[in-house]
Amino acid sequence: MSTPDRRTILRAAAALPLAAAISRPASAQSAPPAAAPAAPAPVQAPPEVTKILAHYIVNAKYEDLPAKVRKEGTRTLLNWVGVAIGGSHHETVDIAVSALAPFSGPAQASLFGRHERFDIMNAAFLNGVSSHIFDYDDTHLKTIIHPAGPVASAILALSEMQPVTGKDFLNALVLGVETECRIGNAVYPNHYDAGWHITGTAGVFGSAAAVGKLLKLTEQQMIWALGLAASQPVGLRESFGSMNKSFNPGRAASNGIFAALLAAKNYTSSDGMIEAKRGWANTISTKQDYREITEGLGTRYEAALNTYKPFACGIVMHPAIDAAIQLRDENKLTADQIERVELKVHPLVIELTGKKTPREGLEGKFSIYHAVAVALVEGAGGEKQFSNRAVTDPVVVALRSKVMPVVTPGVDAAQVDMTVVLKDGRRLEKHIEHAIGSVDVPMSDQALEKKFSDLAEGILPAPAIRRVMDLCWNVETVGNAGDIARSGVAA
Amino acid sequence: MSTPDRRTILRAAAALPLAAAISRPASAQSAPPAAAPAAPAPVQAPPEVTKILAHYIVNAKYEDLPAKVRKEGTRTLLNWVGVAIGGSHHETVDIAVSALAPFSGPAQASLFGRHERFDIMNAAFLNGVSSHIFDYDDTHLKTIIHPAGPVASAILALSEMQPVTGKDFLNALVLGVETECRIGNAVYPNHYDAGWHITGTAGVFGSAAAVGKLLKLTEQQMIWALGLAASQPVGLRESFGSMNKSFNPGRAASNGIFAALLAAKNYTSSDGMIEAKRGWANTISTKQDYREITEGLGTRYEAALNTYKPFACGIVMHPAIDAAIQLRDENKLTADQIERVELKVHPLVIELTGKKTPREGLEGKFSIYHAVAVALVEGAGGEKQFSNRAVTDPVVVALRSKVMPVVTPGVDAAQVDMTVVLKDGRRLEKHIEHAIGSVDVPMSDQALEKKFSDLAEGILPAPAIRRVMDLCWNVETVGNAGDIARSGVAA
Repeated sequence: MSTPDRRTILRAAAALPLAAAISRPASAQSAPPAAAPAAPAPVQAPPEVTKILAHYIVNAKYEDLPAKVRKEGTRTLLNWVGVAIGGSHHETVDIAVSALAPFSGPAQASLFGRHERFDIMNAAFLNGVSSHIFDYDDTHLKTIIHPAGPVASAILALSEMQPVTGKDFLNALVLGVETECRIGNAVYPNHYDAGWHITGTAGVFGSAAAVGKLLKLTEQQMIWALGLAASQPVGLRESFGSMNKSFNPGRAASNGIFAALLAAKNYTSSDGMIEAKRGWANTISTKQDYREITEGLGTRYEAALNTYKPFACGIVMHPAIDAAIQLRDENKLTADQIERVELKVHPLVIELTGKKTPREGLEGKFSIYHAVAVALVEGAGGEKQFSNRAVTDPVVVALRSKVMPVVTPGVDAAQVDMTVVLKDGRRLEKHIEHAIGSVDVPMSDQALEKKFSDLAEGILPAPAIRRVMDLCWNVETVGNAGDIARSGVAA
Repeated sequence: MSTPDRRTILRAAAALPLAAAISRPASAQSAPPAAAPAAPAPVQAPPEVTKILAHYIVNAKYEDLPAKVRKEGTRTLLNWVGVAIGGSHHETVDIAVSALAPFSGPAQASLFGRHERFDIMNAAFLNGVSSHIFDYDDTHLKTIIHPAGPVASAILALSEMQPVTGKDFLNALVLGVETECRIGNAVYPNHYDAGWHITGTAGVFGSAAAVGKLLKLTEQQMIWALGLAASQPVGLRESFGSMNKSFNPGRAASNGIFAALLAAKNYTSSDGMIEAKRGWANTISTKQDYREITEGLGTRYEAALNTYKPFACGIVMHPAIDAAIQLRDENKLTADQIERVELKVHPLVIELTGKKTPREGLEGKFSIYHAVAVALVEGAGGEKQFSNRAVTDPVVVALRSKVMPVVTPGVDAAQVDMTVVLKDGRRLEKHIEHAIGSVDVPMSDQALEKKFSDLAEGILPAPAIRRVMDLCWNVETVGNAGDIARSGVAA
């Protein structure tokens, strides 16, 4: 121990070369002399991923965005603001607010659904937490990144501090989502399988990119912002089931701002933090497909693939809830008419949501019996349908014992076959091929508004809810995007 | 893409279970129902590492610390304060201060060597950056963690905000160092080899543990603090050679405070974030030796193994510099007496520090020729000896061409054989078995004072330097540890 061996000395030496960046040109930075001897030469040098990405982010214009991408970005914003308001009075947020208030900087930015104001980094953290509490935020299905949390939290806070037009805001939102989802694609699924909460690890890049865009970073500064973001991944899957899960998108948001603010003052990093041998992708994942990051920039948009949950539970139950609501609405069903509900499902439905007698709201999220029953009774699958009230409602409890899921070969996980057998002998059938909320059957704008209103009800007065939604829908013509955040605070 | 496959649904479902912690007892938290089916049962369940560690941290008392550990903790503090002052006016710190000032909370804590005051998290970040800029801070040789940066930065800042006795402070410092070095041992070397900057990834645990100790967290809260720390690893080796390197211990310090502050208000995490299947060690390393964390707590102290660099360069050159200074001092050598310097060295010395004609201070750190020459001329190897002035000094430049290192079989990397051949024909010889600064030949208290003074000179007036050092040496009897931080600010 006391005599440093070869390895120790090599490492200590490699650890030495201080901020060469300070006096050397940036191009010389990524080859630390001491680390080189131990590194075998790669067969094919990866492209300069970080530089290519930074070049794109810095130069991409709002006018370049296809209409479909602008529209999806707008829907992403609206959905996200709704869930942020919806979670804003959860105990998780109360705790975080009380813990951080004594340390906050100037009152630069608002919290959705609340009256406190914090500096932009703390506000971004808190709104990010709030928006993920119900796991009801948007999902990029290819990576299951929840894209808006890290990005929208960050740039809305910034927009309250400096004037940002709605067009610039939307462009930054799309670029942030694009950045995190592309980086996520490059390492998914290995990175997620290993145990990382990809929303927090990829999300910090999204935040840094979007904030850096609004701060008008140069390409070199954007490279450094991405590098400082790479240095701050957030979140492990082991924390799922605790407040630590919603911590992750929040902290990704504030870490990304931190990275961009430092880079804006020329705080340096490596020029190749994403792709270098000891950079992010190699260190944090056993898979690296850099084409996912560099190919089709400006023509292929991951941001256009974002989806929104119509139901406040895991997507494995969504086809059944969708079927139940459709049958109820088409037939004006009431619980007392129903003899039983036959359900042909994929094995995962039973495996993941087989809880027959949930006792509290949270458990209801793992009960296909409850989900179908409450959807038939109330015609919805929102947060209210997974409350303690809902799972103990006598009508729902009675009906759930009549729900009979049967694992059926040939039924895909995205599908369901439902037959409601009525007491009068009628059999009402519904086949779901793609549930509402999927890319194929996206939630309508109207459904997004309903979801928003349900979440915001009781937190904001109806006229305020209308106003926030209108600002979101019209983000492209809003003069100052900070108004969106300011309009969502509690009266 | 549009139809979610089995994997996507499994993941999305696993991602669902919100803060079960809120309504369920803590013991139920670590088994999320949805994730279980996919996880093969481990052959042997690991001990409850996080709980065992938290129990130790919460219950360990100052009075339990052996005298040797208290002494080494005191030396760790003194050395760290010196390097923090020394780096405080580097461009890296100037940039970070200017970037963060507009966002800082109340002026709760000081910056060493400067006059600005920041909230405790920003102050901890900035002091952590400052202390690592010269790569001249303390080293735990088994892991090459720089232990004090993340820990001392954090608890000194906290001590300015709430009264902390010197005894409690020293206990927290030792426990923080113990925590990060033990966790580092558990995953080293694989974790470091993969690309992580272990000072930032393990360091955040050290900060959270030490701050949590001073906040008097319960065991459950300490478990959560460690969990939130696990969620925020910092730093990749690719950033070495840029300002991003010193970013890492700073951000580890502020992330650890963030974790402890939230946990203190009962912001929950998992109970097994270090050892769980998808927890920290499994996700971030291919090696997990949990005995390094749980065995010998309170009897075996990693904190007693801390070392301090006498020379401001990689340790591969330390034996030669040590020999040069000893020969110079013993023989009152001057440069004009010297004909040549013969040096028998390990191959790594040439491999890593073979630069013959360095043109600036930083390059001097990679030149055994310069290091030996300047040590013979100036009798030191501090930051000043690796300045632009030193590497362009005509006397040093002339002498360095007379330095002749020869790779010699049988010479260990920790050793050197030096022969100074004088113009009068005399041959002065010195064999170094362990260089000064190693565990075997630690720097004396006097040498630490000299290092401190050299670093602080020109930043603090001499009486202030004396006062800060006295406070550090006497930390155990200091009534309020915050005085140490306050005494180190610029006049």
